[in-house]
Amino acid sequence: MDSRIQEHAEIIADHSVDLQAGDNVIIRAPPAAEDLVVALHEVLGERGANPLTMSTNARFSRAYLRAADEFETPEHHLALVEETDVYIAIRADANVTETSDVDPKTSAAQAQAHQPILGERLSKRWCLSQFPAPANAQLAEMSTEAYAEFVYDAVIKDWDAVREHQAQMVEILDPAEEVRIVSGDTTDVRMRVGGNPTLNDYGEKNLPGGEVFTAPIVDSVEGEVLFDKPLYHQGREVTGVFLRFEDGAVVEHSAEKNEDVLTEVLDTDAGARYLGELGIGMNRDIDRFTYNMLFDEKMGDTVHMAVGRAYEDTVGEANERNESAVHVDMIVDMSEDSFIEVDGERVQEDGRFIFEE
Amino acid sequence: MDSRIQEHAEIIADHSVDLQAGDNVIIRAPPAAEDLVVALHEVLGERGANPLTMSTNARFSRAYLRAADEFETPEHHLALVEETDVYIAIRADANVTETSDVDPKTSAAQAQAHQPILGERLSKRWCLSQFPAPANAQLAEMSTEAYAEFVYDAVIKDWDAVREHQAQMVEILDPAEEVRIVSGDTTDVRMRVGGNPTLNDYGEKNLPGGEVFTAPIVDSVEGEVLFDKPLYHQGREVTGVFLRFEDGAVVEHSAEKNEDVLTEVLDTDAGARYLGELGIGMNRDIDRFTYNMLFDEKMGDTVHMAVGRAYEDTVGEANERNESAVHVDMIVDMSEDSFIEVDGERVQEDGRFIFEE
Repeated sequence: MDSRIQEHAEIIADHSVDLQAGDNVIIRAPPAAEDLVVALHEVLGERGANPLTMSTNARFSRAYLRAADEFETPEHHLALVEETDVYIAIRADANVTETSDVDPKTSAAQAQAHQPILGERLSKRWCLSQFPAPANAQLAEMSTEAYAEFVYDAVIKDWDAVREHQAQMVEILDPAEEVRIVSGDTTDVRMRVGGNPTLNDYGEKNLPGGEVFTAPIVDSVEGEVLFDKPLYHQGREVTGVFLRFEDGAVVEHSAEKNEDVLTEVLDTDAGARYLGELGIGMNRDIDRFTYNMLFDEKMGDTVHMAVGRAYEDTVGEANERNESAVHVDMIVDMSEDSFIEVDGERVQEDGRFIFEE
Repeated sequence: MDSRIQEHAEIIADHSVDLQAGDNVIIRAPPAAEDLVVALHEVLGERGANPLTMSTNARFSRAYLRAADEFETPEHHLALVEETDVYIAIRADANVTETSDVDPKTSAAQAQAHQPILGERLSKRWCLSQFPAPANAQLAEMSTEAYAEFVYDAVIKDWDAVREHQAQMVEILDPAEEVRIVSGDTTDVRMRVGGNPTLNDYGEKNLPGGEVFTAPIVDSVEGEVLFDKPLYHQGREVTGVFLRFEDGAVVEHSAEKNEDVLTEVLDTDAGARYLGELGIGMNRDIDRFTYNMLFDEKMGDTVHMAVGRAYEDTVGEANERNESAVHVDMIVDMSEDSFIEVDGERVQEDGRFIFEE
């Protein structure tokens, strides 16, 4: 077996989920991730943990969702997750558009019914990672071999060093009051973040990790953003997304391609017009866009903003948490003619941080 | 999709496990059974049942078992099965010898730790069935296409008609005191069955079904049996198995090939030298031996006897139940120069039952 697969499994076990002897573990993975799941079983055996493997398969989901018309919370699934210590979810697709002929309303109704299971899962030690399957390489417009190199470069890292490096940005952003993002003539946006914690993502819940993120104060966002990287939402690509904010809300929007998808997202509910996240991508081994948010949002020299739901941990007790059924990330390239200003000081310019000399 | 796969899924749902709206269902299947699991998801969606898919994969088992050295009952797995209404297990191999380099003692230790899960599972509505994967075809020395025909001929049947046909044999065997099995010069064995219920297997817990079976009175078996069909135990083929019984116990045994495997089985524990089952195969669509006991034991015009554990349902309250860690079925061809005698009356001769004219 490719030794990188074994390294990947060991990083998940030892770094991401801090695997202990006696842990009850769910590994949820599709068939295309078979080799990584084999390697995980070996590590679990060595560490004295107890595996249970759930298979995800978009063909199963499609068949079930097209046939079903009502959803309830499956109690056996909930009982399983309640008794679990560790939840490892691996992505690897056979066809990334497999559920493109499922009504999004049906998927949403099922997701709603599964909400208590998701809640349980997020209360455990968990990790979401990626196996470099051919269909994911295809989406990234890469050969499978080149894509595998890309994935392992992003995943197999000294994550303690990453934590320390990113901590420098957390130290700047966590106590800050205001952030301004400027890129070219097209993006100039300000938001307050005072009282909202900044988190350091160094490959625990997401592998790869590589971002520092917080939540804007809901009604504080002012200005305009042109997102440089395309957005891929429910199987459709949206390019050239432009948003103008007043008092936190999107008051004007447009897109070069598939603007209706963007409109639909913003019209989901009241919270969908407000930002739920500001993230700074710091993983420079992610040097290209692969239409996979697990990687894209951590890309070095980018920032991302998400309309919709804010993560609980990123909202201070005194502040309002933006709530929404959606959380849609969009990315601005900061590598050229760009800067991040925190409380009036330039902390990043053309992709170079103030603490990098 | 091959319409036989959809028929197979519908028989499992509607006949074997009597699927109801709101049922919480586990589908446990390996990747090679993907198409059948897709079809099952469609049926579950239509019927309003809730699927959870567990993947079995012999590569995962091998990796885990070779690395682990202690086993405990995984509480998350147990909790899952406790909250389940229906358990559908599908077999389909990528390589039937995948775990041939796992120490059988390790597998046995894990099976022991999983005993409470198995107990829960058997208390639910459950079904074990087979998808015609290439590796299973290879074991049967058939093309995948021909093997698929064999599987679907055995599985897609009018199971109510089977039940009625087999009930005629149950009516004979259930009230009987003594059974004698004679085949050629090599097999002549008698056993008492009085007070032990005879069960009719018509495709519920096993699909295919097609046998009528009971348990012999433990110390009643007398005589000799030469088993015509090879036995395939833990990846090794044992041919020409001969057993001589006195007072129920195997007092002499031999085999043409791999006799040591047979000896090991019989030496497992005290119960391993006594019969736990007498079964009469009645599914004539199973017309060849495929090294798969799910099919082989139901083959038309055969009987099988198992050394080891007796099924609870086949032992009357007044009778002793044979207990053992093993249950190993072996098959006698009854199609020529053979007869079954029940309480002195020939009820089958050269494969033809008394009720078949």
